Amino acid sequence: MGFGFTLKNKDKDSRARRGVLHTPHGDVETPVFMPVGTQATVKTMTPEELEGIGAGIILSNTYHLYLRPGHELIRRHGGLHRFMGWDHPILTDSGGYQVFSHSELRKITEDGVKFQSHLDGSYHFLTPELSVGIQEALGADIIMCFDECAPYPAAYDYLARSMEMTTRWARRCKDAKVRDDQALFGIIQGGMHKELREKSASDLAEIGFDGYAIGGLSVGETKPIMYEVTEWATAVMPEGSPRYLMGVGTPEDLVEGVIRGVDMFDCVMPTRNARTGTLFTSFGKLNIKNASCADDGSPVDPECSCYTCRKYSRAYLRHLHHAGEILGMRLNTIHNLHYYLNLMKDIREAIEAGRLTEFRNSFYNKREV
Amino acid sequence: MGFGFTLKNKDKDSRARRGVLHTPHGDVETPVFMPVGTQATVKTMTPEELEGIGAGIILSNTYHLYLRPGHELIRRHGGLHRFMGWDHPILTDSGGYQVFSHSELRKITEDGVKFQSHLDGSYHFLTPELSVGIQEALGADIIMCFDECAPYPAAYDYLARSMEMTTRWARRCKDAKVRDDQALFGIIQGGMHKELREKSASDLAEIGFDGYAIGGLSVGETKPIMYEVTEWATAVMPEGSPRYLMGVGTPEDLVEGVIRGVDMFDCVMPTRNARTGTLFTSFGKLNIKNASCADDGSPVDPECSCYTCRKYSRAYLRHLHHAGEILGMRLNTIHNLHYYLNLMKDIREAIEAGRLTEFRNSFYNKREV
Repeated sequence: MGFGFTLKNKDKDSRARRGVLHTPHGDVETPVFMPVGTQATVKTMTPEELEGIGAGIILSNTYHLYLRPGHELIRRHGGLHRFMGWDHPILTDSGGYQVFSHSELRKITEDGVKFQSHLDGSYHFLTPELSVGIQEALGADIIMCFDECAPYPAAYDYLARSMEMTTRWARRCKDAKVRDDQALFGIIQGGMHKELREKSASDLAEIGFDGYAIGGLSVGETKPIMYEVTEWATAVMPEGSPRYLMGVGTPEDLVEGVIRGVDMFDCVMPTRNARTGTLFTSFGKLNIKNASCADDGSPVDPECSCYTCRKYSRAYLRHLHHAGEILGMRLNTIHNLHYYLNLMKDIREAIEAGRLTEFRNSFYNKREV
Repeated sequence: MGFGFTLKNKDKDSRARRGVLHTPHGDVETPVFMPVGTQATVKTMTPEELEGIGAGIILSNTYHLYLRPGHELIRRHGGLHRFMGWDHPILTDSGGYQVFSHSELRKITEDGVKFQSHLDGSYHFLTPELSVGIQEALGADIIMCFDECAPYPAAYDYLARSMEMTTRWARRCKDAKVRDDQALFGIIQGGMHKELREKSASDLAEIGFDGYAIGGLSVGETKPIMYEVTEWATAVMPEGSPRYLMGVGTPEDLVEGVIRGVDMFDCVMPTRNARTGTLFTSFGKLNIKNASCADDGSPVDPECSCYTCRKYSRAYLRHLHHAGEILGMRLNTIHNLHYYLNLMKDIREAIEAGRLTEFRNSFYNKREV
């Protein structure tokens, strides 16, 4: 099926791992951050620009593409890779998270989830089987099991029942899968409870998937809790399979996730914040809207080598933002994604060189200056 | 001062001319279309993308940049070229047209125009001297005289007085000019009256400018009137100087303008229409919003060699438009500007080859299919 995962080396002081994902559309060096292309486009960016800043794999959203333009249309146009002109690996989520966060009037049963579209109010019924069917039509290299992303906080009993159902849904996803050129990942749920997370992980491992994700985090819990739950999960996740922390997170979260043994991340933060003028830098966040940027001829981050920092001043970027110019959103997106992807590159090099602890100290020290 | 105009050859059957504008930031082949970069950015495009589709010179707007971010700020940041990262020729308009079309509560006197900013309602007084001062701070290669763009329709007496004042303002602009590395163009006014246009042209020629523009067209008059007024003007405009038809127009207008002896054009049409989904093609306009595009795997224009047409389907572009994705506006803008710039390239080659009449016939024939 063309999918595999090679562990290249492990950090001596932490659970961090350096690996390679093998997919039908090429290899991906891990740990990796996946830019989010919700509607078959990473907002504001061309595929060539994504390549230029070193994106190896992107994520797209099943829920959105199912509703518009429709997965059958994308199938007729050669699948998602061809439709959007991206010839490198893609991961699609299952639609589970979006059904719970975007749609209205959802009703969950053992069979699946009935929900109303956020676009036109139409009714839909999403099941594990349909989720896999949609994802097979889209044709991503990695597809995800349909899961319930439980609300936070939630009662223990609810979380336990929800996690057990997510595991049953995962089995149905595996059974429904027809294509043999796509990897299928299971999703560990169980809220902020160690025993539920461990049960979820071991049950999924028993079914057997190509990779395992940690779902239901970054939903409102504190950072220490998020890091602790991640640590519980990675402690029991299969060593030889890729580990994906879904929807996470800040630059700090990436560093902390890697140290706890995570291989893959995705988050809208770098792209969404770019469009509202918040930029990530080696010294922390910079709000380009600030008056202090108005007459500042220096680049966003003097340590950054991205197109935006090589060519434009803070003064110009602030002007573009205030004038509502699309180029501003583009240049900010290039910078933020470059920052995230470059951070992951630095992390990979630090793991290889056996100096991840030093890297982490230096990462935090710069931000405190 | 680094500015000049070379006439390379003239069409045998029309007034069309093939020339070269020499500017401090390089040569520009004419006839030329200038993409509009109102707020120090051609909307959605990077400078490199503009280069890639063959843009030789762009236009930027004095009125907008004066109000935001302010010409003194741009001067401090090395002028407009450096501020926006465009190292090729730029033309700035005088602010005259925008004062009349964008601002509120304007009051015109011999001295200048008092107006309220469309951004914050603040009061400003723009004079010929201030317009030149702003344009010198911005530092474009070609700057324009401050003129009154009279409303249409307007009484003959009003148009005559307005035109005479515009000529007096032109003299004041020339007197106010300090920098010797910028070309200054005079603007011919006079509404739709032959004798006023001729008087305006000859009075301006007597003062002496580096080039001459036809202002006050494309303001609501019919196409035959616009073409006729253009013809009256070019008949009396100095042969050895570049001729610029301001704010025009459709692809048909460019062909008709060139045939009547125009060397330079600018218009927001290709960029603005791109953002609302109207695309220019060799067979006429295409509305990407049309249901007929929804499942259409073909490119926008099979004859087009732009990035958008080489890589993406109508179905994808329609999806991006419907999903409100910025990439759609970008890809549409690339296509429309490529169409305009390529049309001008074809026109230049046709003039050189002495087959402009054949080109014009073929241009119209394709659109009638």
